[in-house]
Amino acid sequence: MTIDLITALRARLGEDRVSTAEAVREQHSHGEGHHAPSLPGAVVFAQSTDDVAQTLALCSAHGVPLTAFGAGTSLEGHVNPPEGGISLDLSRMTDLLSVHPQDMDCRVQAGITRQALNQILRDTGLFFPVDPGGEATIGGMCATRASGTAAVRYGTIRENVLGLTVVLADGRVMRTGGRVRKSSTGYDLTHLLIGSEGTLGVITEIHLRLHPIPETIAAAVVQFETLADAVATAIDILQFGVPIGRVELLDDVQMDASIRYSSLTGLRTLPTLFLEFVGGPDSVREQIAAVEAIVADRGGLGFDWHTDPDQRAALWRARHHAYWACLAYRPGYRAMTTDAIVPISALTELVTGVKADIAESGLTAPIVGHVGDGNFHTIILAPPTPEGLEQAWALDRKIVRRALALGGSCSGEHGVGLGKRAFMADEHDPVALDVMRALKRTLDPNDILNPGKMLPGNVRSDR
Amino acid sequence: MTIDLITALRARLGEDRVSTAEAVREQHSHGEGHHAPSLPGAVVFAQSTDDVAQTLALCSAHGVPLTAFGAGTSLEGHVNPPEGGISLDLSRMTDLLSVHPQDMDCRVQAGITRQALNQILRDTGLFFPVDPGGEATIGGMCATRASGTAAVRYGTIRENVLGLTVVLADGRVMRTGGRVRKSSTGYDLTHLLIGSEGTLGVITEIHLRLHPIPETIAAAVVQFETLADAVATAIDILQFGVPIGRVELLDDVQMDASIRYSSLTGLRTLPTLFLEFVGGPDSVREQIAAVEAIVADRGGLGFDWHTDPDQRAALWRARHHAYWACLAYRPGYRAMTTDAIVPISALTELVTGVKADIAESGLTAPIVGHVGDGNFHTIILAPPTPEGLEQAWALDRKIVRRALALGGSCSGEHGVGLGKRAFMADEHDPVALDVMRALKRTLDPNDILNPGKMLPGNVRSDR
Repeated sequence: MTIDLITALRARLGEDRVSTAEAVREQHSHGEGHHAPSLPGAVVFAQSTDDVAQTLALCSAHGVPLTAFGAGTSLEGHVNPPEGGISLDLSRMTDLLSVHPQDMDCRVQAGITRQALNQILRDTGLFFPVDPGGEATIGGMCATRASGTAAVRYGTIRENVLGLTVVLADGRVMRTGGRVRKSSTGYDLTHLLIGSEGTLGVITEIHLRLHPIPETIAAAVVQFETLADAVATAIDILQFGVPIGRVELLDDVQMDASIRYSSLTGLRTLPTLFLEFVGGPDSVREQIAAVEAIVADRGGLGFDWHTDPDQRAALWRARHHAYWACLAYRPGYRAMTTDAIVPISALTELVTGVKADIAESGLTAPIVGHVGDGNFHTIILAPPTPEGLEQAWALDRKIVRRALALGGSCSGEHGVGLGKRAFMADEHDPVALDVMRALKRTLDPNDILNPGKMLPGNVRSDR
Repeated sequence: MTIDLITALRARLGEDRVSTAEAVREQHSHGEGHHAPSLPGAVVFAQSTDDVAQTLALCSAHGVPLTAFGAGTSLEGHVNPPEGGISLDLSRMTDLLSVHPQDMDCRVQAGITRQALNQILRDTGLFFPVDPGGEATIGGMCATRASGTAAVRYGTIRENVLGLTVVLADGRVMRTGGRVRKSSTGYDLTHLLIGSEGTLGVITEIHLRLHPIPETIAAAVVQFETLADAVATAIDILQFGVPIGRVELLDDVQMDASIRYSSLTGLRTLPTLFLEFVGGPDSVREQIAAVEAIVADRGGLGFDWHTDPDQRAALWRARHHAYWACLAYRPGYRAMTTDAIVPISALTELVTGVKADIAESGLTAPIVGHVGDGNFHTIILAPPTPEGLEQAWALDRKIVRRALALGGSCSGEHGVGLGKRAFMADEHDPVALDVMRALKRTLDPNDILNPGKMLPGNVRSDR
């Protein structure tokens, strides 16, 4: 980190846009995960693609690494800069650049959050459906290939991006994709960048697909004596072709936490499905009837549904507050969230095994899952001590190894970052990993883009 | 093309699997488009990934180009080998390798066709929805990023592939993706390969998403005085959130051809929408009611719907036979199919302009469109003379330029191949094209994989 670079950045972007203040650097030294923080040498606040291009051109000339920073909600250390350098803060790039209601698409700057976007879009009758839970930026969601509770119906962010503006390692600006719904021309650079975690380029603008706000939304909850029955119900719902809006699994421990935190009445500490139905009113009624029949068949207890907005909201608020419910469940403890995913047919076996691992560990670890995708999170509650954290990591590693043994992935939606790098070689074919490294070398030959992330053994140390 | 290579291939694969017969080479010199055929030096018939790996390792060692060949249904010259070398025929690789009904996925060899796959899957209650019309192989559909009439509901092949087995230029075998519905780990090599037209690797196995066969299917047809009303109706249907199964536009000329060819009674030579509704019976009824109201609002004439399988089949058979209806409309003429796509809001302007171009050209050129995607095909009927073909090419170029001027793409689903290479620089950002060339050089440094395709100025001539 040279003083020359900071001087050059300030000359280009203005004094107030390049900070070396301790507090600002500290704030950009970590996300929401538990990986060791690292201070960047300086923080640059970008307001446009051109700002990003100028910053990267200078970083490239000075051989200084750059790590992009959005809302800082990463759980896997994506935004931590282990090699220092520049932290590029995109959170001021919040413009909605264009909306095309007839085409149901829009273009945004990378720093806008999903909630802010949907707030602006409200009057168009359209919305952006991908919902990872936190107040993440759209750029960060692209970089980590985020999804969340609505993926079972609307797909992940991967299925909802039409094109990108990306700044490459040397400062060149690249536009990928376009406004058309589909195209068969050229390599799919859009999807190469989505999920690349800032290691191949910095995403500055995103062209998004939008969807009509559903006419009718209903929420339901149903409990089961066993986890296997809950998972089997979800499988049946999908196989029956019910176009379910959301289907979330909360295990008995999570229900204990959520019943206390969200004052849920009439529910027991049993495996529970939270469901959302969307569509026209007849379609929603038909979906509910189909699910009710499946639930009866699978021994579900007390299937209860609501279209009343307040009751719906209360139910789903409880699901969305699952994480906070866990924190309140063991006050003062730290919460570490795992992110394994398997084919849904293996989910019961996996979660049953994981519950045995949890019991053996002596830790408390509620489970919530995007059961329609086969993805679930264990919220490991660890005493706030180095030993507690090490216990939590050990349990996380055990869960990942179980998922991989069942044909799964170590991350359904949180990404690799620092946290899952050690599993890349177990999960991916060695030739595929070689190709990933070759692509990284092609697009970032000097390894200045978020170095030390995703690929095991970064490019620098490979040489 | 050395005799040594052929000898080596025969030694590895067996005499009967490597043909230099004139008739076999001629059959592999072209697809179904109108680009100049080129004879390969030999045709290799692969039966396994290992066959493909051995063939590519030998081609690589001998510096001989290789072009993959599936069903030969390409319309843009993808399978023509302009530099000769090996044509690798994958059409014997037709195994369904595994089916997982609970996970709704399956793994196939690249040479199986969509129809053959759905025939085998019939009793599972699941199907593979991507329907490009022709009897294409799944591998070919992946290589060209195919879609078709069902994309508006189920997405294109891009959204329905979970993972691939790919043989790289040097013969290494790479597995990408996996069995999970989503993953946030690593670069998305699966989508980099989809649509790469055999220029980055040869796809040998595909892991596909499957979908439940809908409980109820209904078909409808409705006519409009103007093309603008037909397109506006389609836009309203999508914006209203109707989960339409298919929505296809046939212009007045296509209707004239189809009414004659398919003996459609009660229909006039007017712009027409063919619609398909899928879902539960209540949902389908609700969708039809919603569309009927939209149609009335937009001045649609004689909205008519059927759930009876025979009537449905007759209606959609007429749509699927559009191409044959065109050939019968001008006996002895050649049919050249265009493939432009624009944002749906620009579709009326584009098609209106195209119809003026057609009138000016003096040619007959019916139009059919995947209106929900903004994608349409003009089936240009050209006299079977060199001048006629040149007239058709000129009209095709005009249509592409109009689409590009409206923010569109030169190919919605047929691909680039030889035919659309000249437009890549007009459609794509120059930096994106540079990156595509860099990726090609990284994965195929000696340019042996389908050389001369997709990228303007192949890698060889760039050096």
